[in-house]
Amino acid sequence: MPELPLLPEPGDPRLTRRIRGTDQTGAGTEIAVVEERPLTIYLNRQEIVTAMTIGDHPEYLALGFLRNQGMLRADDVVTGIDYDGEIETVVVRTARETSYEEKVQKKTRTSGCAVGTVFGDMMEGLEGLVLPAAELRTSWLYALAKEINTTPSLYLEAGAIHGTVLCRQDRPLVYMEDVGRHNAVDKVAGFMFRHGIGAQDKILYTTGRLTSEMVIKTALMGIPVLASRSGFTAWGVEIARQVGLTLIGRLRGQRFVCLSGEERLVRDADPSAVAEEDGRARRKAAS
Amino acid sequence: MPELPLLPEPGDPRLTRRIRGTDQTGAGTEIAVVEERPLTIYLNRQEIVTAMTIGDHPEYLALGFLRNQGMLRADDVVTGIDYDGEIETVVVRTARETSYEEKVQKKTRTSGCAVGTVFGDMMEGLEGLVLPAAELRTSWLYALAKEINTTPSLYLEAGAIHGTVLCRQDRPLVYMEDVGRHNAVDKVAGFMFRHGIGAQDKILYTTGRLTSEMVIKTALMGIPVLASRSGFTAWGVEIARQVGLTLIGRLRGQRFVCLSGEERLVRDADPSAVAEEDGRARRKAAS
Repeated sequence: MPELPLLPEPGDPRLTRRIRGTDQTGAGTEIAVVEERPLTIYLNRQEIVTAMTIGDHPEYLALGFLRNQGMLRADDVVTGIDYDGEIETVVVRTARETSYEEKVQKKTRTSGCAVGTVFGDMMEGLEGLVLPAAELRTSWLYALAKEINTTPSLYLEAGAIHGTVLCRQDRPLVYMEDVGRHNAVDKVAGFMFRHGIGAQDKILYTTGRLTSEMVIKTALMGIPVLASRSGFTAWGVEIARQVGLTLIGRLRGQRFVCLSGEERLVRDADPSAVAEEDGRARRKAAS
Repeated sequence: MPELPLLPEPGDPRLTRRIRGTDQTGAGTEIAVVEERPLTIYLNRQEIVTAMTIGDHPEYLALGFLRNQGMLRADDVVTGIDYDGEIETVVVRTARETSYEEKVQKKTRTSGCAVGTVFGDMMEGLEGLVLPAAELRTSWLYALAKEINTTPSLYLEAGAIHGTVLCRQDRPLVYMEDVGRHNAVDKVAGFMFRHGIGAQDKILYTTGRLTSEMVIKTALMGIPVLASRSGFTAWGVEIARQVGLTLIGRLRGQRFVCLSGEERLVRDADPSAVAEEDGRARRKAAS
């Protein structure tokens, strides 16, 4: 397992490109822009998906995607992961032949593509799910937000990107970024699956909105707390309350709103002692 | 055709819900949260997709989705659109039986779902495409940004939502919002298709990032200018340059960056005379 915390590498030349253009005055300008490239994921001999990604951690992305789609089971033994950067493919090999063909068929019916949601599939596994009643200290929330907002990242370097961070108490453990927030979450899931990381004492932080899809993914990963600097959707809140997921949104500076799991919050920090956040964190919001 | 401009209706009680929670001090708070509900789209007898949407303009969403996926052709005659709010379905009926079954099959192979990109399909039609060399005055850009940022919207009301606006010169014509930015674009496309609106003299404004997918959609819709308050991806820029799409990003207050189409910009506004944007526009960025 790589040493933790695993952090973004904004200096990696494969992840951004300098592009020349003009600014509002007509002057030439050169800005850092994130890369976006296809990665085709195979499970054994079956082509599953082509994801648009910045391209780091292809193995974790593939594992996490397959795991979050239910195509890899918790007890599946991965016998190999072959990444080929030339042809932009990654092949995940398992001991057990999986039921992925059936899954692929089902998705076509229930969801289709280009919408970002495999709804019929995603709701599977939610019924009866109850997450552990993990305590969440507000001092952790503030420490995490400050730490994540000031960690060197592609977000600060080039903007237009989403971040997802696996945390424990007040410490970020795995900080993944990608052009699609689904990819960033999937990379975290892939890391957890690969290294057998338990979910019950973790916090997931995301720069993205707390939509139903994000809530469902977090719940199915078994993580009891989801926090974001962004806002909520009504259905996301409903599902969080149903499964006992603590849901914190609009976490900026000293402010936040808790719409699920209030009884698990330990308010051990004085909000008025928390500094307003740096403007840099706001400026490049990925939308 | 409805009267233009067609604007958001943030007061529509179906689109937001008041949800009670707590704030950082532990005090009770009630915030407006956007709705998110499934809408299943049929083309004739074939179920195509279930989209997660706020629920307004289901007919435009269905038409635009099918059109942008290439399942409806420009010359297809729509004989009926039946929306049923009870069972959350919309059925688009056409005179011609389309080749959508084949399309649905193809998507499974080239992309899969939950990633937000139908890549194999989306690149279709780009080869040889050259958009009209439409002039873009910077005074229009500033007027549009100011007008859009101050128009009452779900974005200002509840946040956590994306907006896409079809514009002509300095005037917004159709302003659509949705939890998924693909949906907001699709609603605009549906409006254009339904009412036979020409694309060659239009500008598309989005709150979202200028990813390859967004650039491709705009190009295939035939719109020669795409502007955003958010940033770029490298591949988005490459495709914009290839098809002659004028690409403006990071449009905030007096600032913007042009990474494609500089030669079509008419710099008729003095940036230093443009006011910095209101903090409200920034605060609730959908991410």
